Amino acid sequence: MSEGVEWALHSCLNLAWAEPGEAMTTARLAALYELPTAYLNKQLQALARAGILTSTPGPRGGFRLARRLEKITLLDVVTAIEGPGEAFRCEELLRKGPGGRADVDYRKACVISQAMRQAELVWRKKLAGRTLADIKATLDRRSSRTP
Amino acid sequence: MSEGVEWALHSCLNLAWAEPGEAMTTARLAALYELPTAYLNKQLQALARAGILTSTPGPRGGFRLARRLEKITLLDVVTAIEGPGEAFRCEELLRKGPGGRADVDYRKACVISQAMRQAELVWRKKLAGRTLADIKATLDRRSSRTP
Repeated sequence: MSEGVEWALHSCLNLAWAEPGEAMTTARLAALYELPTAYLNKQLQALARAGILTSTPGPRGGFRLARRLEKITLLDVVTAIEGPGEAFRCEELLRKGPGGRADVDYRKACVISQAMRQAELVWRKKLAGRTLADIKATLDRRSSRTP
Repeated sequence: MSEGVEWALHSCLNLAWAEPGEAMTTARLAALYELPTAYLNKQLQALARAGILTSTPGPRGGFRLARRLEKITLLDVVTAIEGPGEAFRCEELLRKGPGGRADVDYRKACVISQAMRQAELVWRKKLAGRTLADIKATLDRRSSRTP
């Protein structure tokens, strides 16, 4: 997974702490953690394409959350940055093997591919079950304990 | 994940179908699926380093399973090929952020990092709960139904 996932998750939370309606520029978000502006901008644009952020041009423009944190899961952010592809790469080896058939979709038929996909599914479900609102609530509880 | 994981999993199963005590060369394993021999050999060497295969030099040498399929999980193979590192890259952004501290391990303390690691943990557990013996048993059941 690229470092962009970490940057994107932290940036979404930082946007949630902005004043209501306030846009934040890439430069300001990047400065918070000394990140390279151009590369962070690529991640923010990907979040905008995925409908997680909105991007407004102009001198008072920048990025805002496009929806409430309750509606943004960890999986949404991971998919926006990394794409929807599966981590396990199945090149359908069995098609080239003895008895391999051209008309079989081995991504579905191969037991190895099935088992690897099942494992990824539990990972995705876990990520989909965790919203950024959960994360922020945990952070807020912690910071109220440690002034 | 690299394509080497798929190759390694299939190669382990093919070694399980070899005659007891019989070693298979990289060239023979590669020929089964028209794989590039040199690159497959890298994966097989990684499996040997992880104690999943044994490698014997010489004219009658080659690779054998180092232990029974019941003792090889999907996670063993993934870790042998991809290394033990986590998929989510946490560069401890918070250390550089406002109030960041040099003496805190943010990989452990950061809520985002914790949530991402929890999701990976369920993925690893799922992979660790599936042995190559399970996979082979499913394959054997299927092939007995379709002669």
